[in-house]
Amino acid sequence: MDLQMPPAHPFDDDKLKEECGIFGVIGVTDASNFVALGLHALQHRGQEAGGIVSHDAEHGFNSARRFGYVRDNFTSQSLMQTLPGPLAIGHVRYSTAGSKGAQIRDVQPFFGEFSMGGAAIAHNGNITNADALRRELIERGSIFQSSSDSECIIHLMARSLQRNIPERMEDALRRVEGAFSVVAMTRSKLIGVRDPLGVRPLVLGKVADGWVLSSETCALDIIGAEYVREIEPGEMVVISAEHGVESLRPFRPQKSRFCIFEHVYFSRPDSIIGNRSVYETRRQIGVELAREAPVDADLVCPVPDSGTPAAIGFAHESGIPYGMGIVRNQYMGRTFIEPTEQIRNMGVRLKLNVNRALIKGKRVILVDDSVVRGTTSRKIKEMILDAGAAEVHFRIASPPTAWPCFYGVDTPQREKLLAATMTEEQMRDHLQVDSLRFVSLDGLYRAVGEVEGRNPKQPQYCDACFSGDYPVEPSDQIKKGFKLKTAAE
Amino acid sequence: MDLQMPPAHPFDDDKLKEECGIFGVIGVTDASNFVALGLHALQHRGQEAGGIVSHDAEHGFNSARRFGYVRDNFTSQSLMQTLPGPLAIGHVRYSTAGSKGAQIRDVQPFFGEFSMGGAAIAHNGNITNADALRRELIERGSIFQSSSDSECIIHLMARSLQRNIPERMEDALRRVEGAFSVVAMTRSKLIGVRDPLGVRPLVLGKVADGWVLSSETCALDIIGAEYVREIEPGEMVVISAEHGVESLRPFRPQKSRFCIFEHVYFSRPDSIIGNRSVYETRRQIGVELAREAPVDADLVCPVPDSGTPAAIGFAHESGIPYGMGIVRNQYMGRTFIEPTEQIRNMGVRLKLNVNRALIKGKRVILVDDSVVRGTTSRKIKEMILDAGAAEVHFRIASPPTAWPCFYGVDTPQREKLLAATMTEEQMRDHLQVDSLRFVSLDGLYRAVGEVEGRNPKQPQYCDACFSGDYPVEPSDQIKKGFKLKTAAE
Amino acid sequence: MDLQMPPAHPFDDDKLKEECGIFGVIGVTDASNFVALGLHALQHRGQEAGGIVSHDAEHGFNSARRFGYVRDNFTSQSLMQTLPGPLAIGHVRYSTAGSKGAQIRDVQPFFGEFSMGGAAIAHNGNITNADALRRELIERGSIFQSSSDSECIIHLMARSLQRNIPERMEDALRRVEGAFSVVAMTRSKLIGVRDPLGVRPLVLGKVADGWVLSSETCALDIIGAEYVREIEPGEMVVISAEHGVESLRPFRPQKSRFCIFEHVYFSRPDSIIGNRSVYETRRQIGVELAREAPVDADLVCPVPDSGTPAAIGFAHESGIPYGMGIVRNQYMGRTFIEPTEQIRNMGVRLKLNVNRALIKGKRVILVDDSVVRGTTSRKIKEMILDAGAAEVHFRIASPPTAWPCFYGVDTPQREKLLAATMTEEQMRDHLQVDSLRFVSLDGLYRAVGEVEGRNPKQPQYCDACFSGDYPVEPSDQIKKGFKLKTAAE
Amino acid sequence: MDLQMPPAHPFDDDKLKEECGIFGVIGVTDASNFVALGLHALQHRGQEAGGIVSHDAEHGFNSARRFGYVRDNFTSQSLMQTLPGPLAIGHVRYSTAGSKGAQIRDVQPFFGEFSMGGAAIAHNGNITNADALRRELIERGSIFQSSSDSECIIHLMARSLQRNIPERMEDALRRVEGAFSVVAMTRSKLIGVRDPLGVRPLVLGKVADGWVLSSETCALDIIGAEYVREIEPGEMVVISAEHGVESLRPFRPQKSRFCIFEHVYFSRPDSIIGNRSVYETRRQIGVELAREAPVDADLVCPVPDSGTPAAIGFAHESGIPYGMGIVRNQYMGRTFIEPTEQIRNMGVRLKLNVNRALIKGKRVILVDDSVVRGTTSRKIKEMILDAGAAEVHFRIASPPTAWPCFYGVDTPQREKLLAATMTEEQMRDHLQVDSLRFVSLDGLYRAVGEVEGRNPKQPQYCDACFSGDYPVEPSDQIKKGFKLKTAAE
Repeated sequence: MDLQMPPAHPFDDDKLKEECGIFGVIGVTDASNFVALGLHALQHRGQEAGGIVSHDAEHGFNSARRFGYVRDNFTSQSLMQTLPGPLAIGHVRYSTAGSKGAQIRDVQPFFGEFSMGGAAIAHNGNITNADALRRELIERGSIFQSSSDSECIIHLMARSLQRNIPERMEDALRRVEGAFSVVAMTRSKLIGVRDPLGVRPLVLGKVADGWVLSSETCALDIIGAEYVREIEPGEMVVISAEHGVESLRPFRPQKSRFCIFEHVYFSRPDSIIGNRSVYETRRQIGVELAREAPVDADLVCPVPDSGTPAAIGFAHESGIPYGMGIVRNQYMGRTFIEPTEQIRNMGVRLKLNVNRALIKGKRVILVDDSVVRGTTSRKIKEMILDAGAAEVHFRIASPPTAWPCFYGVDTPQREKLLAATMTEEQMRDHLQVDSLRFVSLDGLYRAVGEVEGRNPKQPQYCDACFSGDYPVEPSDQIKKGFKLKTAAE
Repeated sequence: MDLQMPPAHPFDDDKLKEECGIFGVIGVTDASNFVALGLHALQHRGQEAGGIVSHDAEHGFNSARRFGYVRDNFTSQSLMQTLPGPLAIGHVRYSTAGSKGAQIRDVQPFFGEFSMGGAAIAHNGNITNADALRRELIERGSIFQSSSDSECIIHLMARSLQRNIPERMEDALRRVEGAFSVVAMTRSKLIGVRDPLGVRPLVLGKVADGWVLSSETCALDIIGAEYVREIEPGEMVVISAEHGVESLRPFRPQKSRFCIFEHVYFSRPDSIIGNRSVYETRRQIGVELAREAPVDADLVCPVPDSGTPAAIGFAHESGIPYGMGIVRNQYMGRTFIEPTEQIRNMGVRLKLNVNRALIKGKRVILVDDSVVRGTTSRKIKEMILDAGAAEVHFRIASPPTAWPCFYGVDTPQREKLLAATMTEEQMRDHLQVDSLRFVSLDGLYRAVGEVEGRNPKQPQYCDACFSGDYPVEPSDQIKKGFKLKTAAE
Repeated sequence: MDLQMPPAHPFDDDKLKEECGIFGVIGVTDASNFVALGLHALQHRGQEAGGIVSHDAEHGFNSARRFGYVRDNFTSQSLMQTLPGPLAIGHVRYSTAGSKGAQIRDVQPFFGEFSMGGAAIAHNGNITNADALRRELIERGSIFQSSSDSECIIHLMARSLQRNIPERMEDALRRVEGAFSVVAMTRSKLIGVRDPLGVRPLVLGKVADGWVLSSETCALDIIGAEYVREIEPGEMVVISAEHGVESLRPFRPQKSRFCIFEHVYFSRPDSIIGNRSVYETRRQIGVELAREAPVDADLVCPVPDSGTPAAIGFAHESGIPYGMGIVRNQYMGRTFIEPTEQIRNMGVRLKLNVNRALIKGKRVILVDDSVVRGTTSRKIKEMILDAGAAEVHFRIASPPTAWPCFYGVDTPQREKLLAATMTEEQMRDHLQVDSLRFVSLDGLYRAVGEVEGRNPKQPQYCDACFSGDYPVEPSDQIKKGFKLKTAAE
Repeated sequence: MDLQMPPAHPFDDDKLKEECGIFGVIGVTDASNFVALGLHALQHRGQEAGGIVSHDAEHGFNSARRFGYVRDNFTSQSLMQTLPGPLAIGHVRYSTAGSKGAQIRDVQPFFGEFSMGGAAIAHNGNITNADALRRELIERGSIFQSSSDSECIIHLMARSLQRNIPERMEDALRRVEGAFSVVAMTRSKLIGVRDPLGVRPLVLGKVADGWVLSSETCALDIIGAEYVREIEPGEMVVISAEHGVESLRPFRPQKSRFCIFEHVYFSRPDSIIGNRSVYETRRQIGVELAREAPVDADLVCPVPDSGTPAAIGFAHESGIPYGMGIVRNQYMGRTFIEPTEQIRNMGVRLKLNVNRALIKGKRVILVDDSVVRGTTSRKIKEMILDAGAAEVHFRIASPPTAWPCFYGVDTPQREKLLAATMTEEQMRDHLQVDSLRFVSLDGLYRAVGEVEGRNPKQPQYCDACFSGDYPVEPSDQIKKGFKLKTAAE
């Protein structure tokens, strides 16, 4: 088990990766079945592994953690029968930076037995002071089982002086810095928390007589749950059969800074965030792009699948026809075990093919969601030119990604980010395309509904990956040598 | 192995299924690596299993057959090293009607050792007199290892009086009725054949100093091969290092009848068939539909992914905005092992979700490629209405599918086809939609370039699934009780 | 599947290997469960793979073939439920000489569909004219699926002109030379045959209202069946519900030549062969050895486990105390996948350890069943000396193995047999032991009850491995260059 | 992983089970390879799972834990390459009482990261105050990952105030009650400890320039290590490259009480314990039995394999011939996954068969090592009588097992022990045998070399399972309701 999981897609190193999706249900029969479906709908937030913990009166806490897709593991009767009960939480994850390799013990939810009973937690986000906390906890005699930053939370809870689990969780989370949305459970309670800035999403839903917590609304849809509201930044909800949903405010209030990249790429287009349709926002980014960076061309072509909504918006605004110039192979899975040399070198061609008949002789606008390292963009450009395109214009539905994220997103080191070392013109030359334009930061803010654009004094969102403006100091990273943006930059 | 493969997707019973993709390469180093990539590109033609046979001087014939996706099996170094040599063929398949369950011995290529050496064959299509041939061969002492109709070919070859393998293959195929494209190999030759009507596709490509045979051109693209031409109906090509490509005509010439459904659904949109872009043809079907069956609405929405090109064409022609009203979960795989009750009942909701924010309050035109049983159409309609659509109009990019295919496509029995028992209006009522329209048969013929539409005296294509006009008598089926279309119908 | 089975035990190359065990039952509920138990009891006759075919009215013939032990495959409910019906046969096998590697298609029973219905056969033995038959059958158009000599039988049956399956089997077996015990089945009949010399064993048993055929009586015991009698050399029994056991004599009568090595090593000690207890025979060989080759010593020690009965006999006859000087590790399995260098070099020490406290300072008589290459004997001697034995005397409970077996036993090539190139003294020097003695051929015959010893004019047993006197000419081998014993030898 | 391991052999519920074997090496290249071999030799002490931890300078601590036999897991190059370094420890285990099912997280060695570096420990024995310790540790904020009593040790170490790991281990073990032999490691030290009574074994060996710790000497033999001495009761050895073997005495001295059942059954016959050959001791028990409980009979027959040495002694002393009346099937593995009804009911007949020809008409003395529940004894008796034995006499090479063990042996609850509720005569009647005799406690003590027999004032061994005299109070058990022996009993 320990060493069989190769890192990831050969060609997926050119996207930022959300690290986790979380989901919990209380008050329904066989809650774990609902959690399995919810996690399946959140699979885009983490494909490496998944886990579910349930509780029932007869067996107590039950747990299963597996590498691979939810649909390949948590759909079988024989496994799901081991997870009975009216209360369950689950987690899908992408990976844990810093670990030697994928280990089943790193897969959440994490579980701890306390003197007043057990608790399980699932965490989306990243704790920016995890190294320091871990060191402190080890000094005091805690034994860590995983390499995950999230494990700190359960150890802090174990050591809390408080007398019940929700209070211990409050106690623990007050020591934690960074971005976190948490779904947790005790024997009888489902708990949800968002950090004071509300960086990562978490929503509340209602299904029959029960309640649901989920990273995104698309996972409410799959189980037929009704969307109630977002958990608010800094809010903690404790849900039980007896008292329903209780709302607490354990943290000092702050102005919220939701992750704007959730709108750009992470969330599914059929989700609703901040009462806005993600699809519509992305389509609107395409409209903004067409206004900011028009170009005379014959075809607007999305880079599938994430560029599609913006391409539709660009085509509509510009009046240039929309077409599927690039076709995706639907039978790509995740990873290769011991691949042949040839497979290793195929890269994006295993996944995408150019629709040569459509592209040939045309001036093509390619709309993509983002450029990270630029490696995929370059290969796609080559495929398009090989197919006989007359011109290739890239339009990117986000500003240049110039800074790493330390709040639960897997980003390359800063020096690997194309935009960290190049201007837009340099990137255009590097990619050897006829033109390359990113939507402006203000254009992006307008697309998410901020008609005045970004407020530079007090930005409405966390946009650190574009701006270098980190709302929480990444203290562990700074100790490891990361340099914050200087006044000169 | 014998019994672990459940039938198929819970919700895929509502599409016709191409049963096979075939691919072969000669004259390159490690031909099997090219075959693996080619089969990966042809995976949409068969997802249940795949096989590769190669030949090299040291080991003779080498073979590997596996259940599951090409990418999960034929990408690993340790397997591919067992398939060395400059000559290889491969096959992906969907399933074999009539078999008790998936058996590895049914997976092609089939291999036979003859007195003059071995041969392997991979077959796409269906032999309509296979039952009769099988009975005859068993009477003579042949032992069948599989339940596949294709195995007849290798036994007929084994019993031929001819002295070399290409001649034995001619001999064998002259006894065979139905639709077949075949890729075969001897120790030193790659052979390709299409039946006299040319029902199933087969193309010739060139890669470096070698030659390629493939079901579709998209599989030439993935290995960087150049498209040379189609193998012609009734043509047999024998390719060797010494003599290059030799073209033979073993059959009595007939007017060709290519499968028109390859244009509608089976082939990949980035393939070229009959010198026409499949994508462009599908887009044009959407244009024809918009002309034949216009409707006042707010949104043109494809049923992903196969309805997309026609939806783009419909939107363009009608001027109604195009939008992604239905979002696909990218993490669906193939089949479930021992699924829970809940999973079994989820159906299409595991794969698709409605983009509620976009759909709400709108009059929606849903564009799909075909309606088979109508079960999926009905579920999609419900999801759209649940999301608050004001009206739902179905526009189908093919005529009503009223007859089963006996030429290599997996179709339900006739009585399960919605269009076999209902008129267009009855189907509309059955599906409870505001309107339902199929493209006309003439409209479809126009979209594939026949400006005059279908020639009813001598149809240019095989369109039996729409018209009931079978170009080859399905003799085995008639013996089992299938009734041909009567003059009255 | 194709390539995952490494050859065999690192230290088992020093025993002859029985290649097969066969078993069949008719007239009981869930016959395949009985077959599974019977095969488990016959596992010593073949450990590489096993297969079962059953027949029931609803599904027709059912089959499962697996690599590995019977107990690891044919004990699970989910598999056994796929093998229903009142009639079943099974096979365990060691390996197929000449094949590239273990292939599931080489695993018996073999099945053929004929015009009058299907038949399955399981074969123990070896066909000495299989190469010639295969060539002839291929010329006539048969397609072989396996590399097994046994497959000839089913193809000969397929081509027979006879009208029912038992007659076709007679017809086929008359063309076959060599040693064979066969268990076969049709839809309603269980069939057993032994070759005219009766080289390999086959017995008949009765269980409840049904009948059993088995290689050995120990497999009757496990299912609680009563031993009825041996199938006689040259006899064919056809067993059905309607007619019970019918006995036929399809072959020209000959004097029987049962394999004497079955008594020495192959059969289990709790089996009865020729109405003699195998255990008692082996014990008696020890008695003969003690008489023929006495030696002054302190301890009689068996080489576990096959030397134990002869050691008990030797100790009893000689009056020298019996003791467990060598202890076996009970947790050895079969084969190693990709073993480390160290494991590869461990050899017999992984399986055996010396009981140092018992051996130290003693003059030790080691009793083993046979010496093939002598590699294991040498290692055991070293272990005994390392433990401080004063003297080491080998006593071997069979004559020198100087000739290969071509009748269904896996033997090394002649030049690898220690006794093919060395005299008894040379072997003693080679093994560097204080003395080495084999039981004489006459002593062995006496132990099996031939009080006059071996009849050199007309030997009562097949003892070709000791004498070079082959009762059936090994014609395929002679064509490949094998030299029969000359008058001078 | 969590739920795939069925409890155990259907017929192994009638033996006591040693729960663990431990092994460690320092100062050799690729220490983990030595550990794998050592664990293979100790496999009889635990078959359910095994684990190895190694340390090397480049990667730090490396670990692998697997269900199943050592030979099936820790022999492959690809796994062993992940365990590099000159220092490694390992563990095989049987099971953990009280757990819901086998869980990989229960498999030792356990690992903890402390502020001064990591440590791994492997424990053989049982902590009798584990429940109390666990409760206390949880109160203080420790999070337990397993259900194993052994995990207490590593948490106690984590919380120790001492400054280096050996001192922390002393500190921890002083809080622990019960029986323990421990092998542990830090980055540079191998540590061995035995509890003050020395209940469980642990020996020291020398291999090349390195040192070995092992549960038994048979595991020194397999790696060619020299036996140096036993670790003494209450001794702690700390072994490093710099300082060699340092001996510490962390506990208050006590009179030792080694487990006498190690001599009777647990240890391998080729091991040396307390400078006595286990084989010779067992043979001597047979001699004592023959003296204490003679009987007129025709055959002395061991119940394989554990009854063999005592049977040899009994036969020798009594002059009654020794013979293999019961034959073992060598191809039994461990457990069945989802067994058929028939398999479940087979019990001991899957493993043993009676040598009918030998038994028939004879008066048989069966020598077995112990009687626990009596279920297997009863089945064996039936098999012997079915085979036609005239009389059946049981002679048992241990006193009646009347009390459970709480020191690391898996025993049934007291009421399930036959001898807890029946006298010898009642047991004889229950088993329906002609006679049944156990060796006396004094006879057993004489066989292990105590010529005066047992000292009732101060017993030389722990014989609680026979006497009810527990040298360490089983405090957790008493809290759960276990009743100690009363003066009246």
